[in-house]
Amino acid sequence: MKQSKLFPRARKEAPKDEVSKNAQLLIRAGFIDKLMAGVYTYLPLGLRTLKKIENVIRDEMTKAGGQELLMPSLHPKENWQITGRWDSLDDLFKFTSFYSETELALGPTHEEVISPLVKKFNLSYKDLPLGLFQFQNKFRDEKRAKSGILRGREFLMKDYYSFHTSEEDLDKYYENMKTHYENIFARCGIGNVTHLTFASGGSFSKYSHEYQAITEAGEDIIYVCPKCSVALNREIADDNGKACPECGNKNLEEKKSVEVGNIFKLKDKYSSPFNLKFTNDKGEDKPMIMGCYGIGLGRLMGAITEILSDENGMRWPAEVAPFKAHVLEIGKTNDDVKKAAEELSVKFEAAGIDTLHDDRDDVRAGEKFAEADLIGLPYRIVVSDKTLSSGGVELKLRNETAGKIIKTNEILNEIQKL
Amino acid sequence: MKQSKLFPRARKEAPKDEVSKNAQLLIRAGFIDKLMAGVYTYLPLGLRTLKKIENVIRDEMTKAGGQELLMPSLHPKENWQITGRWDSLDDLFKFTSFYSETELALGPTHEEVISPLVKKFNLSYKDLPLGLFQFQNKFRDEKRAKSGILRGREFLMKDYYSFHTSEEDLDKYYENMKTHYENIFARCGIGNVTHLTFASGGSFSKYSHEYQAITEAGEDIIYVCPKCSVALNREIADDNGKACPECGNKNLEEKKSVEVGNIFKLKDKYSSPFNLKFTNDKGEDKPMIMGCYGIGLGRLMGAITEILSDENGMRWPAEVAPFKAHVLEIGKTNDDVKKAAEELSVKFEAAGIDTLHDDRDDVRAGEKFAEADLIGLPYRIVVSDKTLSSGGVELKLRNETAGKIIKTNEILNEIQKL
Repeated sequence: MKQSKLFPRARKEAPKDEVSKNAQLLIRAGFIDKLMAGVYTYLPLGLRTLKKIENVIRDEMTKAGGQELLMPSLHPKENWQITGRWDSLDDLFKFTSFYSETELALGPTHEEVISPLVKKFNLSYKDLPLGLFQFQNKFRDEKRAKSGILRGREFLMKDYYSFHTSEEDLDKYYENMKTHYENIFARCGIGNVTHLTFASGGSFSKYSHEYQAITEAGEDIIYVCPKCSVALNREIADDNGKACPECGNKNLEEKKSVEVGNIFKLKDKYSSPFNLKFTNDKGEDKPMIMGCYGIGLGRLMGAITEILSDENGMRWPAEVAPFKAHVLEIGKTNDDVKKAAEELSVKFEAAGIDTLHDDRDDVRAGEKFAEADLIGLPYRIVVSDKTLSSGGVELKLRNETAGKIIKTNEILNEIQKL
Repeated sequence: MKQSKLFPRARKEAPKDEVSKNAQLLIRAGFIDKLMAGVYTYLPLGLRTLKKIENVIRDEMTKAGGQELLMPSLHPKENWQITGRWDSLDDLFKFTSFYSETELALGPTHEEVISPLVKKFNLSYKDLPLGLFQFQNKFRDEKRAKSGILRGREFLMKDYYSFHTSEEDLDKYYENMKTHYENIFARCGIGNVTHLTFASGGSFSKYSHEYQAITEAGEDIIYVCPKCSVALNREIADDNGKACPECGNKNLEEKKSVEVGNIFKLKDKYSSPFNLKFTNDKGEDKPMIMGCYGIGLGRLMGAITEILSDENGMRWPAEVAPFKAHVLEIGKTNDDVKKAAEELSVKFEAAGIDTLHDDRDDVRAGEKFAEADLIGLPYRIVVSDKTLSSGGVELKLRNETAGKIIKTNEILNEIQKL
């Protein structure tokens, strides 16, 4: 894509009302725009990033055996009364339909929809385990919406629900899901700072598990075991004598972190109120056992921004970058430079390498370099009179400080090896 | 994908509370499920179809020059007061945030968000024309939610907004957009029954244009000119003396139809209230001229269902079918049949042909054929002892009544030619 056409141009100044680093960087670089507290528009660069993250998650959830569906945001009051959460969830958006005079909620999660949905199909043990997931906007009437896209009132979430004949089967499924969650965070470039964290299991399970990514921007406190790499959420640390739940080690490191995912053994908590059962091999109805597995996509994108950025801007891992390559025309642009840059961009795109081509004539070189660092695409390719007379183009990785000249006819090959 | 794993199985009975053909077929075939009036879940087959339709639209909108973004569903009251639509739109869902005590609306359309968004970037004539679009859920407190997914209270919509220096530039852009709209309906298989229809332009334009698809399920009445193939909406027919707006022909045919898209010259209707301007080549601020272009994806999917179905079920065009090929194991299944069917499915998928493989052992042949017709994938491939001993497999197109035997090693080639 030609950068001269990209909407919008980067902004020189960070917005004054944004205190979080992720929102400042993402707004300056033209990834997002704030409509109101906790409610953001994803601009073209930001939406491309969000979709890349979505594709990574979709790929792993499909490999875990999940089938994708899409449930509504508008929920009937009755479903939320059945679980008691109409009254107990204090961040539920509720309102009345003018025409039908029914009360509705905006879904902050979907157990109240998926349990009665699955019930309709009278599943037998032969249909289980079953995994269903979606990417759907969630809504929460959030009082602490001050962390950019880390904590929103409206946010895109992947929620996955699994259905089982027994707790043993759930346990097996749950362990396999951990592997896919680890893959997701690794592919998003934050695997090395993201810890499986033991957290409160509520009234029906000893633990739930969170994936906590270490960052100063986080609102959570965790205690990390350096031996096992697992962590303990502060909320249950005292109950556990501040010891590693896996090895008993008491020398844990306190860290600030943000929850980028969570997985939960629901057991029959949401199947029981809806009388969701399955038929076993003897023809008897038995309670369905459930698990759920969430990831907030905006929060994950915000966490990547916080964790991987440096003083010059963002640093996107190749798999979730809005574009992989950034081709910059630099210097007093002339026909040779323009032609070479254009040919490279076309060649990259044809080879499946998304490319942003900074073809702007009215922007100084220094500004182009600064914007390229701010946007943070992994591979920067400079085309100028100087590089051409040195026999090629300059390739610099966003994670490195020095570039090197590569022959023009070898650059594609070089990038494909990265 | 193996049909034995697909959620859910098809239902034998149409739901009693659904009066529309589209909802009956889509629910029976397991494409959608109704949560409440006008609010539906897209199940895996339905979501695949919706995504295919989305991809066709995205492709055409990108070719029209549009850049994709994603605006929020939660809107602040202030933006809707500025245009006066907080009070005038009677199907706007409104509610109060408990924590912030602010009033919010759920977006039924996005002029109130995109106009102030674009204003933030102080565009000049060099940045124009600009096209921005999104796929986003819309919400309307709809009293007539009785037509399945043709008319929802929550529905996925593509809305596209264009920004111009002049009405002349808008006119040019608008004409080009018509071509892309025609391409979309043609690619969705309803091009031949979809008519560009002149409708009311409101208080600020002589006409707007709708794309009306002829079907008995429609709630609109249009008058089609057999010469020009354009139509006139009943709402303005009398004002136009029931004559074709293009050729003056008065022998128009009255038809029932459903609006599957609309395009509108907004001019300065939504830029003016927000004081949205651009800088011209003399450095002067001038009012921005706007156009908007909508397509409801659920409604389009419902219209395709209504129009292309026959007494046995749906008939999806290849480009938007949830899967292209349906491989059926038929008869007393044995290892040879299973192996041949499995190999074909793998081969098709590897060649980029999405395939549903009916591998179920506990379903009779008659039921498999009936379900295949109901689901309506374009290419049905039967593998049985009989076809194998006849030297291959049977290929039958959903649009044809008779199948023919094709050699197993030629079937992929045959399908790729279709």
